[in-house]
Amino acid sequence: MSSVAPKHPLDGFFNARSVAVIGASADPDKLGGRPIRFFREAGYAGQIYPVNSRSAEIQGYKAYASVTDIPGPVDQAMIILPAPACMAALQDCAKKGIKFVQVLSSGFGEMGADGLRAQNELVAFARQHGIRLLGPNCLGLVSVRDRFYATFSTALEALAPSPGGIAVATQSGAFGSCAYAMAIQRGLGLSRIVATGNEADVDVAECIDFLADDPQTHVICAAIEGCNNGERLRTALLKAAARGKPVVIMKVGTTEIGIQAAATHTGSLAGNDAVFDTVFAECGAWRASSIEEMLDVAEYCMVAPAPANQRALIATVSGGLGILMADAAERVQLELPPIAPAVASQLREILPFAPIGNPYDTTAQLSAVPGGLGKVVEVLLRETDCTTLLVYIAQLACAVQKFEPSRAELVRLRTAYPDRAIVLVGPSDAGLRQRMADDGLMMFTDATRAMVAAGAVAAMHARRRAIADDAAAGKASAASVGAAPSTPAAAASRAPRAIRHEADAKAALQDYGIAVLQERVCSSAQQAVAAAREVGLPVAAKILSPDIPHKTEIGGVILNLKDEAAVATAFDTLIERAKAAAPQARIEGVLIAPMAGEGVETILGVHMDPVFGPMIMFGLGGVAVELYKDVAFASAPLSPQRAQALVQRVRASKLLQGWRGQAAYDVPALIDALVKLSAFAVDHADTLAGVDINPFLVRRQGGVCLDALVSFK
Amino acid sequence: MSSVAPKHPLDGFFNARSVAVIGASADPDKLGGRPIRFFREAGYAGQIYPVNSRSAEIQGYKAYASVTDIPGPVDQAMIILPAPACMAALQDCAKKGIKFVQVLSSGFGEMGADGLRAQNELVAFARQHGIRLLGPNCLGLVSVRDRFYATFSTALEALAPSPGGIAVATQSGAFGSCAYAMAIQRGLGLSRIVATGNEADVDVAECIDFLADDPQTHVICAAIEGCNNGERLRTALLKAAARGKPVVIMKVGTTEIGIQAAATHTGSLAGNDAVFDTVFAECGAWRASSIEEMLDVAEYCMVAPAPANQRALIATVSGGLGILMADAAERVQLELPPIAPAVASQLREILPFAPIGNPYDTTAQLSAVPGGLGKVVEVLLRETDCTTLLVYIAQLACAVQKFEPSRAELVRLRTAYPDRAIVLVGPSDAGLRQRMADDGLMMFTDATRAMVAAGAVAAMHARRRAIADDAAAGKASAASVGAAPSTPAAAASRAPRAIRHEADAKAALQDYGIAVLQERVCSSAQQAVAAAREVGLPVAAKILSPDIPHKTEIGGVILNLKDEAAVATAFDTLIERAKAAAPQARIEGVLIAPMAGEGVETILGVHMDPVFGPMIMFGLGGVAVELYKDVAFASAPLSPQRAQALVQRVRASKLLQGWRGQAAYDVPALIDALVKLSAFAVDHADTLAGVDINPFLVRRQGGVCLDALVSFK
Repeated sequence: MSSVAPKHPLDGFFNARSVAVIGASADPDKLGGRPIRFFREAGYAGQIYPVNSRSAEIQGYKAYASVTDIPGPVDQAMIILPAPACMAALQDCAKKGIKFVQVLSSGFGEMGADGLRAQNELVAFARQHGIRLLGPNCLGLVSVRDRFYATFSTALEALAPSPGGIAVATQSGAFGSCAYAMAIQRGLGLSRIVATGNEADVDVAECIDFLADDPQTHVICAAIEGCNNGERLRTALLKAAARGKPVVIMKVGTTEIGIQAAATHTGSLAGNDAVFDTVFAECGAWRASSIEEMLDVAEYCMVAPAPANQRALIATVSGGLGILMADAAERVQLELPPIAPAVASQLREILPFAPIGNPYDTTAQLSAVPGGLGKVVEVLLRETDCTTLLVYIAQLACAVQKFEPSRAELVRLRTAYPDRAIVLVGPSDAGLRQRMADDGLMMFTDATRAMVAAGAVAAMHARRRAIADDAAAGKASAASVGAAPSTPAAAASRAPRAIRHEADAKAALQDYGIAVLQERVCSSAQQAVAAAREVGLPVAAKILSPDIPHKTEIGGVILNLKDEAAVATAFDTLIERAKAAAPQARIEGVLIAPMAGEGVETILGVHMDPVFGPMIMFGLGGVAVELYKDVAFASAPLSPQRAQALVQRVRASKLLQGWRGQAAYDVPALIDALVKLSAFAVDHADTLAGVDINPFLVRRQGGVCLDALVSFK
Repeated sequence: MSSVAPKHPLDGFFNARSVAVIGASADPDKLGGRPIRFFREAGYAGQIYPVNSRSAEIQGYKAYASVTDIPGPVDQAMIILPAPACMAALQDCAKKGIKFVQVLSSGFGEMGADGLRAQNELVAFARQHGIRLLGPNCLGLVSVRDRFYATFSTALEALAPSPGGIAVATQSGAFGSCAYAMAIQRGLGLSRIVATGNEADVDVAECIDFLADDPQTHVICAAIEGCNNGERLRTALLKAAARGKPVVIMKVGTTEIGIQAAATHTGSLAGNDAVFDTVFAECGAWRASSIEEMLDVAEYCMVAPAPANQRALIATVSGGLGILMADAAERVQLELPPIAPAVASQLREILPFAPIGNPYDTTAQLSAVPGGLGKVVEVLLRETDCTTLLVYIAQLACAVQKFEPSRAELVRLRTAYPDRAIVLVGPSDAGLRQRMADDGLMMFTDATRAMVAAGAVAAMHARRRAIADDAAAGKASAASVGAAPSTPAAAASRAPRAIRHEADAKAALQDYGIAVLQERVCSSAQQAVAAAREVGLPVAAKILSPDIPHKTEIGGVILNLKDEAAVATAFDTLIERAKAAAPQARIEGVLIAPMAGEGVETILGVHMDPVFGPMIMFGLGGVAVELYKDVAFASAPLSPQRAQALVQRVRASKLLQGWRGQAAYDVPALIDALVKLSAFAVDHADTLAGVDINPFLVRRQGGVCLDALVSFK
């Protein structure tokens, strides 16, 4: 048994000891010439093999007519040829036994059907020969420490990277180049940079998976435009979270797949963005809203320790700035606990006139008292458990000499309290910022950006803890959550195609333990009257037809029928309306149900996401959903804990607590229904198109499904 | 008649030809020594008079024991003495005839009651002697072009300002120093910097008023923590808007004045922030959410022309970045119109394979086609009327030499189309950015920040146009808007104190033309039955008491009484409930009103803001207001145009258009009611505490006030 961990499947891309450049050019400015120049100028220590049939030597290296002519082993090949020539080159790579091939050439999937066919042929061939393929139409990759500059991006010409712990993995080369350039300009050290292009084989998700294992990488910045394999992305993100590696991710390009085709209301609310938001958060990543924010958060993660809680303290020489920061703290859900009296008295000993609070307004006294900054920071670190401490120091750091003793003291405190983040805010020069960062002290110029980054990092860590807690809870009661079909017997008992209308849908959900009213399917006015007598007046009557999924729109629901005559009339009216509105519709009768009584109308839904599979939606009825899109999503299956978190993420859930002093509604019953709905969604994931339980009435005691639409692909 | 404009009342602070420093120190690092050093080192050309009783010479200047000993005229004095010595110094200034005095010393209003008394004495004395006072507890001011560094801020030590068109006026010195330092670090030129401190006399509003007239200032950055004189701030902001000078303002410090004491629901929703937001927008200013954003917008205004519309085009070498920018555009309300077919064909001639759209994804082709960038920009400028053009160029500008021809072409286009903003996005070095800015080309590194700034500037200009339009409309129909009491007869007819309850409130509003139901005040069950007969069953019954403003909370409203017996019973029930809930309450009877029928329930309110006076609130009933705070405010009086804009700012107003294919509700009737309510508010501004019309029912035809609470101070 070997103790050496097996290499990651992508290892050969990032850690290559030799590289062939197929389509190498003697002109160092041409696409095929640049990588050779980059390797040479940077001092890549591996073997460089230019491949070009017309030259014996290229940029000082011996050139080969084909990769098959190269004497030694070749770890990786870069193909930079016109698209039609790429397949032959790939075949040569196979002959040579090269297992890692980049196709940087464009002219494939991005160019329409013909290009896509050519691309598919490349992938099929590669798979057949055990070759991993990066691209086509990609910008390549860089392993900074090894000086492995396997790219033709001109971004490298203007700005040379320095090694460090931040990796950048993007789909779009232009996006990646921009993030790269901005990172270099602010002095961030990078580990790996990769742009995956058309992602015919390797995608950003798999790169994240590699980076999660990569000892050179501590923080992963990623940007995707779409995602072909949701499970791979989830797995990669969760792996990074488990390794304690922050992932700061951007999703640009809302392709809105599936919205047009949405069979359910839930589907139309899901869009694409809400689902990505949900999955990123569930997997412990932070979704940045700008490249600048992505780099702020990444740098913060490199400099400051992982915060054990979301509590922060603000000390500030300017009251106004303090309030600005407190406002931002609320947006990023950082808690600002009050200063305890015992701590206050210690602070008063240092700065007698500064008003105590959080933000703690030190006033300009802070710079008047010798060593004031260090003393205040020490008290706040020693006497509180807040893991994040932000100090607005105005322009104190601009006078570098005068600031030096304070800086030294802060470095000492950072070492003495290694689990606390000390974040300074105020203008300073780049050199000082860099020195501070090297000593583990984060420094921002803009107060708002500081707060957003601090909040992002704390939120990421909180999310990771939630993942770990949920995993632990899941192990303790696996049966109650389980990604595998939870009640196979029930699932088998009701074949999907048998769900034709509301009554069938409710029966299927009832099989999973979701409460429904005692209802009767009636095929005559007489039956309707008998049913009303049985379930008790007043009743509601609804048309039943597999061809009329949205009953209300055709007047197919009549509520509050108080006597038997009204029930009989309602039956006839509904049949007439249905025939008038949809002459071809198969009418299966009328549903008679008791009136539901008082409660809060909520919406429970399943959105079958084409990328991420079944997602559970929750929201409250009416304008909350229609107008304010106040809904939240969570991946199925749901544990009770995650169902509860889902409910809490909806603002309108306040109404369930009892509005203005009224008694609370039965939230546990709601959570139970969500968990059961998620089990239903998982069991039928292969065939389900979506579910709307609208409304699910949450009562003072219990809850009940009043209407349900279950649709299949 | 002289043609010379009179000097602004604050001119002597900013344009002083001589200055006395009272409390001058020979130590150039002490508070009293720094201004002398700053003046000397910077080369201030005016007369410098150190005042210090113990030295004949200070830092090379002849010193005087008192300002009264100074031979020539003295324009301005800076007092830097312990607080108790300040009054004597001020008295000396008066003797010397100095009309502009800064009190930089602390120990006044910020230190509690004693300090405030001393501060009030200073102001009283100054007013008596025609002296304008800056401070106390202020950081002073700087007029950059004149090298007039009348401050002891250490910010000046580290970072010397260069002259330019941006002014910074803040209340807090620390805030101002920070904005100052950040501006200098990014190379922005400044005109005036002033920090007003305790604002015993001069406040930020008056400084804005000065800067609006100041020929050296083109953009005004301001930050306030509170505001003592709302009308002065409004006037100053409107003046700057009229002069075409952008004001970028931050309001930090939510003192929440008046929320605790709010007599009405409207008042509690107003908070402080919503009102400031409203006033800033109404007066054409942009409220920045961070210092960085403030400076982004200010710089943009210096470099780019004022946009004539809110339409923008995005061209981008990265599709992903384009979508990121488009998302941001939506947030800042920039419109992205589609590319017309004729323009598309011209673009295709330049870049055959780039997909047409807005964002226009040029793909990497842009850099492959010689002169591609210039050609694309020229087509977009020539063939569209979008005043803002943003181009994401990735790292093209990092290769400064290669970029030079493109840069030159962009400069040519900027000159050829002087009314268009050309904004480049992508990394570059500071030197290039500065050169581009000098040529009128704005360059951002971060795409999101670029979009936010572009949107802010376009919004500011749109607001200015709205102000001008409204002013023009107001002149055309002065009688319909009018800030003066609109219907003095009606106002006089109903003395405020006579409004004791709902019935009185409705009558008062009816006097202003707001529709109410035909209702009857009844003092017996018999009267109630008669009234019900008269107004027509079914009716509503409500308790009437000046001591029970919130009737629903005690069960004081019974709806839908269908027969006379029910009316009689309801009368007795209401009286009993009122007596039980509030035994001391004066009960004035029961109001009998017809049921109102179908419509949308809205809330119309008046919040009497302690700073800005009567503000009109609009929102829709229920969760829209309670949960989502979906309300908007506007200053009274309202023109119909402004009332319409107020309604449109509420998201839930969509429901008034008729939800899901239903007929629309009578929005003109709603607008009419808002205008009339605003007239009521203006007429009773002196005595009114607030108004809630909740609900105001907007019907398919007309609208009616169903309940009203009018409260007085």
